Amino acid sequence: VPLPEKATHQQTRAFNAQLVLRTIYDRPAISRADVARLTGLTRTSVSALVAELLDSGLVQEVGRGQSTGGKAPILLRVVPDARHVVGLDLGGGSFTGAIVDLRGRIVRSAERPLRADDGRQPLELVFSLVDELVGAAQRPVLGIGIGTPGLIDSETGTVRWAVNLDWSELPLGDLIAERTGLPVHVANDSHAAALAEYTFGSEPSPDNLVVVMIGRGIGAGIVLNGQLFSGDAFGAGEIGHTTVVEAGEPCRCGSVGCLETVASVRAIVDRLRHLAPRHPGSILARDPDGIDETRAVQAFLAGDPLADDVVLEAARQVGRALAALVGALNVRRIVVVGAATAFGDRWLEAARHETRERSLPLLGRDTEVVFGRSRDDVVVLGASALLMTRELGLSLVR
Amino acid sequence: VPLPEKATHQQTRAFNAQLVLRTIYDRPAISRADVARLTGLTRTSVSALVAELLDSGLVQEVGRGQSTGGKAPILLRVVPDARHVVGLDLGGGSFTGAIVDLRGRIVRSAERPLRADDGRQPLELVFSLVDELVGAAQRPVLGIGIGTPGLIDSETGTVRWAVNLDWSELPLGDLIAERTGLPVHVANDSHAAALAEYTFGSEPSPDNLVVVMIGRGIGAGIVLNGQLFSGDAFGAGEIGHTTVVEAGEPCRCGSVGCLETVASVRAIVDRLRHLAPRHPGSILARDPDGIDETRAVQAFLAGDPLADDVVLEAARQVGRALAALVGALNVRRIVVVGAATAFGDRWLEAARHETRERSLPLLGRDTEVVFGRSRDDVVVLGASALLMTRELGLSLVR
Repeated sequence: VPLPEKATHQQTRAFNAQLVLRTIYDRPAISRADVARLTGLTRTSVSALVAELLDSGLVQEVGRGQSTGGKAPILLRVVPDARHVVGLDLGGGSFTGAIVDLRGRIVRSAERPLRADDGRQPLELVFSLVDELVGAAQRPVLGIGIGTPGLIDSETGTVRWAVNLDWSELPLGDLIAERTGLPVHVANDSHAAALAEYTFGSEPSPDNLVVVMIGRGIGAGIVLNGQLFSGDAFGAGEIGHTTVVEAGEPCRCGSVGCLETVASVRAIVDRLRHLAPRHPGSILARDPDGIDETRAVQAFLAGDPLADDVVLEAARQVGRALAALVGALNVRRIVVVGAATAFGDRWLEAARHETRERSLPLLGRDTEVVFGRSRDDVVVLGASALLMTRELGLSLVR
Repeated sequence: VPLPEKATHQQTRAFNAQLVLRTIYDRPAISRADVARLTGLTRTSVSALVAELLDSGLVQEVGRGQSTGGKAPILLRVVPDARHVVGLDLGGGSFTGAIVDLRGRIVRSAERPLRADDGRQPLELVFSLVDELVGAAQRPVLGIGIGTPGLIDSETGTVRWAVNLDWSELPLGDLIAERTGLPVHVANDSHAAALAEYTFGSEPSPDNLVVVMIGRGIGAGIVLNGQLFSGDAFGAGEIGHTTVVEAGEPCRCGSVGCLETVASVRAIVDRLRHLAPRHPGSILARDPDGIDETRAVQAFLAGDPLADDVVLEAARQVGRALAALVGALNVRRIVVVGAATAFGDRWLEAARHETRERSLPLLGRDTEVVFGRSRDDVVVLGASALLMTRELGLSLVR
């Protein structure tokens, strides 16, 4: 049984500094007295810590609040542009990145198509993207956050295994840190998406939240008791590679019949290409080889019967996986992000229906399956949230 | 974002008293000076808190330790018999209970067959079991811990739904507390089993642990970061009622094709009764209606081919559910308890093999699926651990 270790004075001060910053960050404006009241710290401590934050430029004084008898107190707020953060998303067909301010606002974006004609390797493209964004920053850059598919050791910033990029035991964080001299934090892209929904989501976040990202692959980020849960080896949420079909299609992970092979957007496209020639009534039959995500979505939204069959079956497979998650965790709020959200409400309704049908009624009936708010930028924002959290303690999510 | 509230003096004192008791409990014998060093509390505080514990009889002085220069220090230890706890297990065909000491040693057991001929209702049997055990206690009884199947609101002690006992919204904890005047804590039986394995398991417990109980029903208790995870509505671990067979057999939960209908010991017995008449070569064909758990286990251990087919397929179904858990949580240690453990190593190997086959290799290969140490008494011990934890803070598991 672990015991709380006695904190050193320095650790206590750093902890309290983050507590004060977070308290100011969580409100539009707040007085020193209210910070002291909310944190339980003495006024003297708060004044000393606030003085440091003012010196660093992270916090500024913004006029006076309501008087409660005596002199009206000076109010403090975090300066959104005091620092910028670079967030990267290495999933999908392009690497994307952005400069993000402390409030999660995107200041500038950049992109590198993964299959570029110039023969550059993925890592060179990451360097190029980082160089452009760090070089373009108009404010001090706090660091770089990266969300990338695969098994990521988020403590060391090592990509243990990423099949889409053919990376294995790549010390990505160290490589970028050496190149830029900046702090770098790396996480699985679905985990980053969960941080984004938890930190920047529009509604107040419940303590427990599952964010499922469905695009070329399928993965989940799980927030339990307000903290990202990574599992024993950073593999929590790897639901895309659980076998769901006996002797099914080969998966890029090396196994067969994984959830990804039947329910990802990539699987939908493959299946439509395979079936379209045999379905002359489908609008997709004209050019089966030309079917891509966009055309699959168009056909489904137009009510094409072949697209209906394939897309709704994929949604039901997702629902089955979600029912297993509901049974395991009894987490009521499940947020879907990624390319699959383009299939819209009928996809969502099919996934939701299957989730509830296959769950214990008392649990399933209270489970919400919804689309996330931030779709395209969710990983970039989550990677930024990761960086801000680890460097400034701006959120309780770790 | 929640902020730590400033603790009152009284809360701090109660917290520190539990910290001191736990520190003494975790060691065979310890000096006041070492308690102070390990807890970070002052010697003065420790001496005052230890004086209270000595007065209460929970702690005693047991001679002197090694001198480290000055006078050899007096050593302290928890008195295992200072208090007793009553633990109950309301799963299975009998209600069982025990008087348990503070070290988890069973002092006296009692049992009430559920389908008694005297027509008494389940709740009357619980009362009778409690009365016997509380009445027989030779030491002050700290309280009563109860593990019971179903959805249990462990904060209020309410059985929200327990299909085996036909209970719905039953305030079990309050009813027993009123009858006895003692503190009562209630939890799902699989959750209690997880507490038992975490608290009394022979090996040092990892931070994350899944305990799967497979008997008449199937359920799991999930310990994450050293704490029992209950989910949003106390339904975490209800993996037995996730649908695994399309249009499968009816389940007692009202649904069809649940994991319980194909992989529980009850399902194995039902399936053997159904198939035995058509398999004259099986030793079970002689008396299909007489097949019960004991005969099913005997036939399997004797290598009967029909029993082999049915039992190993059930084990593989369990493995599939475990693979979904591994994908969701990446918890490396999975402990199986309950009646299914009687099927022994071949059942375990089949479940383990299927778990690994169906998991992402990098996650599956490091996953251990093992039998728990404490099989019959696991829920009684877990219910006792729950009570000790909540009343004395004797474990970090909550």
